[in-house]
Amino acid sequence: MPAVPARFHAPDAAAAGDLVTLPEDESEHLTRVLRLTAGAEVRVFNGRGGEFDSVVEAAGRDGVRIRVGEPRDPAPEPRLGVTLAQAVLKGDKMDDVVRDAVMIGATAVRPFVSTRTEVTAATLAKSHRRDRWQRIAVSSAKQCGRAVVPTVFEPVSFDALIKTLLENWLAGPALMLVEPGAAKAAVAFGELEVETPKAVTVVVGPEGGWTPEELEAASAVCRLVTMGHRTLRADTMGLVATAAVFARWKEF
Amino acid sequence: MPAVPARFHAPDAAAAGDLVTLPEDESEHLTRVLRLTAGAEVRVFNGRGGEFDSVVEAAGRDGVRIRVGEPRDPAPEPRLGVTLAQAVLKGDKMDDVVRDAVMIGATAVRPFVSTRTEVTAATLAKSHRRDRWQRIAVSSAKQCGRAVVPTVFEPVSFDALIKTLLENWLAGPALMLVEPGAAKAAVAFGELEVETPKAVTVVVGPEGGWTPEELEAASAVCRLVTMGHRTLRADTMGLVATAAVFARWKEF
Repeated sequence: MPAVPARFHAPDAAAAGDLVTLPEDESEHLTRVLRLTAGAEVRVFNGRGGEFDSVVEAAGRDGVRIRVGEPRDPAPEPRLGVTLAQAVLKGDKMDDVVRDAVMIGATAVRPFVSTRTEVTAATLAKSHRRDRWQRIAVSSAKQCGRAVVPTVFEPVSFDALIKTLLENWLAGPALMLVEPGAAKAAVAFGELEVETPKAVTVVVGPEGGWTPEELEAASAVCRLVTMGHRTLRADTMGLVATAAVFARWKEF
Repeated sequence: MPAVPARFHAPDAAAAGDLVTLPEDESEHLTRVLRLTAGAEVRVFNGRGGEFDSVVEAAGRDGVRIRVGEPRDPAPEPRLGVTLAQAVLKGDKMDDVVRDAVMIGATAVRPFVSTRTEVTAATLAKSHRRDRWQRIAVSSAKQCGRAVVPTVFEPVSFDALIKTLLENWLAGPALMLVEPGAAKAAVAFGELEVETPKAVTVVVGPEGGWTPEELEAASAVCRLVTMGHRTLRADTMGLVATAAVFARWKEF
């Protein structure tokens, strides 16, 4: 028996006494990987902030049922909500981006397809990529101890992203990360004049960067920001920027 | 011909007019990957902050010779020096840690072996791991545009690391990252009372975390620090902590 009970994602867990069925991935993890059986003490989180001491009621071929016990205080969520708007990256790099965003404490991930993105929206839809990223978000929440599973939105076009940012204008600033020297209008992150916001959207481009047209279109709704004088890799930019946002506005 | 000439590491380049030979890795990259020949315009950096417009003088079987041209302004180095002291991680994760540390702007990487490190110092020495990491540092400097190649030190024991931190006590604070809840003495990063330092050492443990004895031994010379309320993976902790340090003390 491990010192700290294993944690599982049980989206239906709402209150002590509930008898809930685990999703298939979670059942597999419980029975095949951890080899737990009826009577085992576990913890479950519902992905919306609820976390409970629980007990395995039945673990068989027809799935795992859990008797939900007393609620626990979950790991506190950041007061400052960060949405990571990330241009889809090559290969499976987006998997790491989603995993890291959830780990550091992002509220949501909003993938988009920009001019230099090397994957098309059609390919993403056909391969059910969003479902995959959402599963990765669950798995990362398990590992990092969050009781909230951030939403990974359906990938949208760059134009649709800009429209969403405009609609959410009042919620908080959008910071578009640009390479040092890539845009004259960009300012250093530390020189941004922003009062402690309630929410921030961090906008990160693909490996090939932004086109001049995208920089122009975004500058109406985003602050163009540089982070240091080196060229950061596209697949670490979101993590670095979120860490900087959290450090600057006292979330860390 | 690319718009921006390719960059190569030429450790012997010191002044305009020098004729220098590229190291073997760099020669391979120039001739086999980029297929450049005599007359090609390139840039070279010497790893100590010097960067030069240059021209390939000869590219043949006996290596590549470069005629060093006029010096250029290199990408500015951070004013705040961050040394990443990182417990060696499993598999090739340390490669990513070194690559990311160089990219974000660390001054040096100091690998060490702690109680829960799963690799022995003997294995590291036998497999010439330090040489490998130093090559990765060169390659990362090429990619991110730095003219300085940070030093990757020989891996040492945890005790030797503590001794080094004591000896460097005056240079700046050492921040030892701990998981939320892992040490009572730990404070949130944002609550650290530290005036803008000239240098910081960030100390990151292995996947399995610190032993109580290590936390005790370190607390004499390090501030124990948490970064948010989630459990960050060991292979991203150094990057997150360095980003937070740079954001807090206006390097970003």
